[in-house]
Amino acid sequence: MNFYEKLDHITQKNKSFLCVGLDPDLKSLPDALSGKKNPFFEFNREIIDATADLVCSYKPQNAYYVAEGFERDLEMTFEYLNDTYPDVVTILDSKRGDIDSTAKQYARESFDRYRADSVTLNVYMGKDVITPFLEYENKGLFLLCKTSNPHGGDFQDLPIMGTQGEEPLYKHLARKVSKEWNQKSNLGLVVGGTYIDALKQIRQMDPDLPLLIPGLGAQGGDINQILETAKHLKNKRIIVNASRSIIYASKGADFAAKARQKALDYHNVMKSFI
Amino acid sequence: MNFYEKLDHITQKNKSFLCVGLDPDLKSLPDALSGKKNPFFEFNREIIDATADLVCSYKPQNAYYVAEGFERDLEMTFEYLNDTYPDVVTILDSKRGDIDSTAKQYARESFDRYRADSVTLNVYMGKDVITPFLEYENKGLFLLCKTSNPHGGDFQDLPIMGTQGEEPLYKHLARKVSKEWNQKSNLGLVVGGTYIDALKQIRQMDPDLPLLIPGLGAQGGDINQILETAKHLKNKRIIVNASRSIIYASKGADFAAKARQKALDYHNVMKSFI
Repeated sequence: MNFYEKLDHITQKNKSFLCVGLDPDLKSLPDALSGKKNPFFEFNREIIDATADLVCSYKPQNAYYVAEGFERDLEMTFEYLNDTYPDVVTILDSKRGDIDSTAKQYARESFDRYRADSVTLNVYMGKDVITPFLEYENKGLFLLCKTSNPHGGDFQDLPIMGTQGEEPLYKHLARKVSKEWNQKSNLGLVVGGTYIDALKQIRQMDPDLPLLIPGLGAQGGDINQILETAKHLKNKRIIVNASRSIIYASKGADFAAKARQKALDYHNVMKSFI
Repeated sequence: MNFYEKLDHITQKNKSFLCVGLDPDLKSLPDALSGKKNPFFEFNREIIDATADLVCSYKPQNAYYVAEGFERDLEMTFEYLNDTYPDVVTILDSKRGDIDSTAKQYARESFDRYRADSVTLNVYMGKDVITPFLEYENKGLFLLCKTSNPHGGDFQDLPIMGTQGEEPLYKHLARKVSKEWNQKSNLGLVVGGTYIDALKQIRQMDPDLPLLIPGLGAQGGDINQILETAKHLKNKRIIVNASRSIIYASKGADFAAKARQKALDYHNVMKSFI
C-alpha cells in the first residue's frame, strides 16, 4: 500500500482528518508521570490509546525529544504506533532540509531508525533535499509551503515572476511540487490552517495533493473554515493537526480521558465532511 | 566575549579560516576504530587533536549522528572541544527551522545540551525561526542563504522585486539579515564556495557579516577564489569548511596524520590572506 492509499484508508476507516501532535514537554506533563523512566513515551502511549479510533495520524515533533536527549522515547513511540496501530499514518515532524550524503542520513533516520510513514521537509535548498527520501517506496514527504506563524510571510509571500505571472513564493513552490516534483505520487504540502485563502488556492491548483494543516486550537485556526476547503473533493487528503489543545486538555490524572473528549469534539465536526 | 570576537580571536591566533566538518560515517571510518564503544567520538577526537592548531572552527554535522542513534558521540565531541580547545569556534550543523515553542526546544538542544558556540538555521519560515535563539547571549547563528548544491537555485535564485529592484531571493535574504535582523551582531550567512559571484555580492553588501562557506574539496570549490573574497577586508570573518577531503584523507591507521597534512595544505594557502 503506498502512502496516499494508507492515508485514504485510515481517513475513511476512522472518519477523521485529525492528527494529534505528540509534543511532550517536561513542564507540562501530568504529575502522575513524573519520575517515570521514559516519561514522554508513557505520556504518548496513554494519549494514543485514548484517541487512536478518532484520528488519521500522529505527528511527534522531533524538537521536544532532542532538547531533552529523549531520542529513546521517540523510538519507543514509533515502535508502539507501528506495532499497535499499523493503520494509522505517522509523521516525523523534523523539517529536515539538507543535501547529498547528509540528506541521505536524515532519510535513514526517518525511515530506518524511526520507521515513520512520512516526514516534514524544508526545501529552501531545492530539489536535492528530497532526492534521497524518494528512494524509500511507500513513504510520504510533506514539504513546507505556507506556514502558520506570524512572520511566515517574510519570504513565503514575496512576489515571484513565474510562468503564471506574479505570484507569492509559496504558490510558486506549491506549483513546482504539484507539476514537476510529484512524479512518484508521494508528496504533500504543509499549509497553515490560519491562511484559508492559501489553502483554497492550493486546493484548486491540485485537488489530490495531501495537505498537512497545522494551526488548529492554540494557534487560532478555525476548524469549520479549514474543513470547507476539503468539501466536494474526491480524495479528501487533508490532515488537520492539533497538539496542545488535545494533549494538555488536563494536567491531572484524567489527562487521557480529557484528551479523548477534546479529540471527540474535533471528530464530531470532521466526520460530517467525510 | 561575544561570538564575533571569539571568531576574530581564533582566526588571528591560528591564522586560519579553516573549519573541519566532523561528518563521521560507519562505512568510511578507519578499521582501527571498528568495535569501539563511541566510534564517532573516538574518530573525532583523533582528527581534532591532529588539527586544532590549524583551524578556526569545527562543525559536526548532526545528520550523521542521528542516523545511527549516536547522539552520545555528538555530546562527547562538544564536551571535548569545549573542555580541551575552548578558543576554537564550534558550529552545530543541524539547519533547524521551526517556530515558537518548537524553535525554543531546538535552541535548548543547540546551546544547553550540546553547548555549541553557533548553529546553522533555515529561515524559510521567517524571522520567528531565530527569535528563541537570540535569547542566548554570545551565540552565533548562520542562516542558509546561497547553498552549494546543484539545485540550490530552485528557489534561492528566483527573481524578487525588492527595494533595490529585481534581485534573487538569496540576495534579498542576505539584505534582510544584514540590514534588519542583525541587531545583536551575532548573525552570519551560509554561502556556498561554489558560487563566487554570490560571495562577492554579499561581501560588498556587508563586509563584516561572518560567512560560513562550504563546498571546498569534494564539492569542487576553489580555495584561492574563495579566499580572494576575504582580501582587503578589515574583519576577515570567513569560515571555509572542508569535511571529507580532510577527515577521510586516509582510511588507514595514519588517518589523523593524513588529515593534518591535508589541513596543513589548506592552512598554508590561508595564512597568507590573514
